[in-house]
Amino acid sequence: MKEKIAVYPGSFDPITNGHIDVIKRSLIFVDKVVVAVSDYSRKNLLFTKEERINLIKTVYHGNKRVEVDSFSGLLVDYLKTRDIELIIRGLRAVSDFEYEFQMALVNRKLNRNIETVFIMPGEEFFFISSSIVKEIASLKGDVSEMVPEVVVKALRKKFNY
Amino acid sequence: MKEKIAVYPGSFDPITNGHIDVIKRSLIFVDKVVVAVSDYSRKNLLFTKEERINLIKTVYHGNKRVEVDSFSGLLVDYLKTRDIELIIRGLRAVSDFEYEFQMALVNRKLNRNIETVFIMPGEEFFFISSSIVKEIASLKGDVSEMVPEVVVKALRKKFNY
Amino acid sequence: MKEKIAVYPGSFDPITNGHIDVIKRSLIFVDKVVVAVSDYSRKNLLFTKEERINLIKTVYHGNKRVEVDSFSGLLVDYLKTRDIELIIRGLRAVSDFEYEFQMALVNRKLNRNIETVFIMPGEEFFFISSSIVKEIASLKGDVSEMVPEVVVKALRKKFNY
Amino acid sequence: MKEKIAVYPGSFDPITNGHIDVIKRSLIFVDKVVVAVSDYSRKNLLFTKEERINLIKTVYHGNKRVEVDSFSGLLVDYLKTRDIELIIRGLRAVSDFEYEFQMALVNRKLNRNIETVFIMPGEEFFFISSSIVKEIASLKGDVSEMVPEVVVKALRKKFNY
Amino acid sequence: MKEKIAVYPGSFDPITNGHIDVIKRSLIFVDKVVVAVSDYSRKNLLFTKEERINLIKTVYHGNKRVEVDSFSGLLVDYLKTRDIELIIRGLRAVSDFEYEFQMALVNRKLNRNIETVFIMPGEEFFFISSSIVKEIASLKGDVSEMVPEVVVKALRKKFNY
Amino acid sequence: MKEKIAVYPGSFDPITNGHIDVIKRSLIFVDKVVVAVSDYSRKNLLFTKEERINLIKTVYHGNKRVEVDSFSGLLVDYLKTRDIELIIRGLRAVSDFEYEFQMALVNRKLNRNIETVFIMPGEEFFFISSSIVKEIASLKGDVSEMVPEVVVKALRKKFNY
Repeated sequence: MKEKIAVYPGSFDPITNGHIDVIKRSLIFVDKVVVAVSDYSRKNLLFTKEERINLIKTVYHGNKRVEVDSFSGLLVDYLKTRDIELIIRGLRAVSDFEYEFQMALVNRKLNRNIETVFIMPGEEFFFISSSIVKEIASLKGDVSEMVPEVVVKALRKKFNY
Repeated sequence: MKEKIAVYPGSFDPITNGHIDVIKRSLIFVDKVVVAVSDYSRKNLLFTKEERINLIKTVYHGNKRVEVDSFSGLLVDYLKTRDIELIIRGLRAVSDFEYEFQMALVNRKLNRNIETVFIMPGEEFFFISSSIVKEIASLKGDVSEMVPEVVVKALRKKFNY
Repeated sequence: MKEKIAVYPGSFDPITNGHIDVIKRSLIFVDKVVVAVSDYSRKNLLFTKEERINLIKTVYHGNKRVEVDSFSGLLVDYLKTRDIELIIRGLRAVSDFEYEFQMALVNRKLNRNIETVFIMPGEEFFFISSSIVKEIASLKGDVSEMVPEVVVKALRKKFNY
Repeated sequence: MKEKIAVYPGSFDPITNGHIDVIKRSLIFVDKVVVAVSDYSRKNLLFTKEERINLIKTVYHGNKRVEVDSFSGLLVDYLKTRDIELIIRGLRAVSDFEYEFQMALVNRKLNRNIETVFIMPGEEFFFISSSIVKEIASLKGDVSEMVPEVVVKALRKKFNY
Repeated sequence: MKEKIAVYPGSFDPITNGHIDVIKRSLIFVDKVVVAVSDYSRKNLLFTKEERINLIKTVYHGNKRVEVDSFSGLLVDYLKTRDIELIIRGLRAVSDFEYEFQMALVNRKLNRNIETVFIMPGEEFFFISSSIVKEIASLKGDVSEMVPEVVVKALRKKFNY
Repeated sequence: MKEKIAVYPGSFDPITNGHIDVIKRSLIFVDKVVVAVSDYSRKNLLFTKEERINLIKTVYHGNKRVEVDSFSGLLVDYLKTRDIELIIRGLRAVSDFEYEFQMALVNRKLNRNIETVFIMPGEEFFFISSSIVKEIASLKGDVSEMVPEVVVKALRKKFNY
């Protein structure tokens, strides 16, 4: 049987405990997850692409089932170069749902062999998003229950606290 | 590597082209799908359990990657007896989304090793549900684009048209 | 130019001020509205088909731009017999939205010339539905701001108050 | 200053840990909560009114800030007889949201002095509802994390397990 | 009978196959659609007003039932100068629904004679929006199934591919 | 009995009749509302903090049950300095609902003694938001039914009309 690999794309600005939970749950049904950091973002980014990649690499250091990569351009083109057909996305709320469905439909339209599966993070992660984490950190709040230690440090450095 | 098997549970009263699309898409990332027909239903059922199972078996006759089974009691108990930890569910709309999330959380609560993944059927199946198919058939409408041929016949027989 | 006619289908069990508002707004862009009372209902009905028709006829007595009719079977078949291609539906809330979209898609599937347009009732009617009116009346509450006078009387008679 | 009292109405069929969490949170801003068990329910009830009341009374035995009562007819009429103007309702999901808003608007319409405030239960209770608890219990599943001990026993007795 | 005219307002940055589908469906119940390009946009615009107008004019060249116009200021003021009372808007998703309802209510508030009707585009256009088209084009993806040929060319020119 | 005080936080850019309605309804169950103007906003602000505070102070001049204050940093830290544990937020629509729930969960996470209660404004205020008011005013539209007189004047001054 062929190894099953999925891509988990996103801006990961920064990676949160919610993302980590989605990856953990994905590894129940795929053999390997490629965390693919995207160049493109609808929102302003706090961390550079290199910083975002390094934070994820630190979290998954030594874990052979999680690879960290990055891509420019369309996700479907990246998937083709990697010869992967499965996308993983987390779903927390109705608003996620609609945006994610739109993107999944677009990706299917651009390449009909590509499939997106949706994972629900643990309920304790429903309230966590990269945006909210950055908002709290910018106000010098405690984000240690929302992101891994290495990200806490990176945020404290960015916001001097 | 171990064979990856997922259970696709439901009442399938009757199986629709939307269900069939979800199964087809699931086979991209699992090796085998067990279509598990449930005893329990919140709504009144049109077909008996045996009829529902037979309709699905007819559709997947000769397909070794799709198994048809049934269960009584809790889905998590059934999964344990089968030694399977992955559940597949289709998601079409916001209303699906909330019910499905509630069920997925309940199943996790009852057994924390169980994971549910959500699949979006093709957009041409968004409007199809077993309920709408039965409603149209009860009014003697044409459902041949919504369900497989064998189900069209079974519905015509039930509603005498 | 041909007269523009639309069908406003429903169970109207009973007609409410919300329905009346949708009809009034529809007459801005169509010449005539056919209020088509359906035989079929997903829920238990309080009034008979004749009662429901008569209540609407009383409300629109003498109004040449509103016709009251009824139908059995599929809405699309009724539309064909009437040679009408436009359906009007009210939209109040997200839950309406999903059911209405599903029905509109089904009707298009059954006959591609049929089009559904959605009207938003006045915000003062957002909370009114036939179900809530029946619930309040069954508890002998005052529904005089929610339905026309003739319906208030009919409800009082049904629930003896 | 006058004592602040709120009514928390519902069918409580049966009371769950989610309801209990809403009551606990309400006592942060009111002095007393009247848990008011309703006669009326859109769904079939499992427990009699007396059983439902007794289960809640057992849970709040000796707690002077929680009173258990029941009512027939309209909630607004009950509030008038009690001279209370504040209703408390829990909100978990978008589907709750729409029904609750409709009811709150109706109650305001029926009595403009009445106000409804919404409380969000702890995220660990988002998935719990009386319906899901009854569904799981009817399948002989473990509901001990979802309802208080006394309710677990009552459910086991109802479903013989 | 007076000719029925409706305004279809928007930023059309750029016009998509979804917009075109809404216009086609609108012509079932109105005699003429005025596509009214707005000055105002909540988002950054890619094309100038002239470019956006010219793209639409190219698409509807020779079609007497579709007029292309533009406006500054409030939509209700524009409607008054044109002596038109009907607005057409497309609805695809729940998120559309809420924004569109808010705008429709505001427009009614500003002029109570104005009515908005909502059209559901074909399901194959649910995933298309001007934003997603621009996002894909900016990443040099193929948008030829999402926008008319003239827009494909304009996007390729803007993004040099 | 201790006086019950709640904080109603927001950017109030500017205060609208919807905010005022929420405050009025809150005073049914709390003794005093502290309107707390935040430094932080996800969107660009039209008015300075001082202007926003002064507009609210003008509206509530002489009202001892409404205090106007401001804060920087995290809301939970502000609540601690004020020794207040109750937050009030208005809820109008599904999109509000999800953002508000996320914020309420975050605040609970940051301080578990803090509770948020949600109030539904009158249905005549459902369509009003600070954003829509600013949009209409920027187009020189009439906002006199949406904001208090003093805010109408301030908006006219900002947009020169």
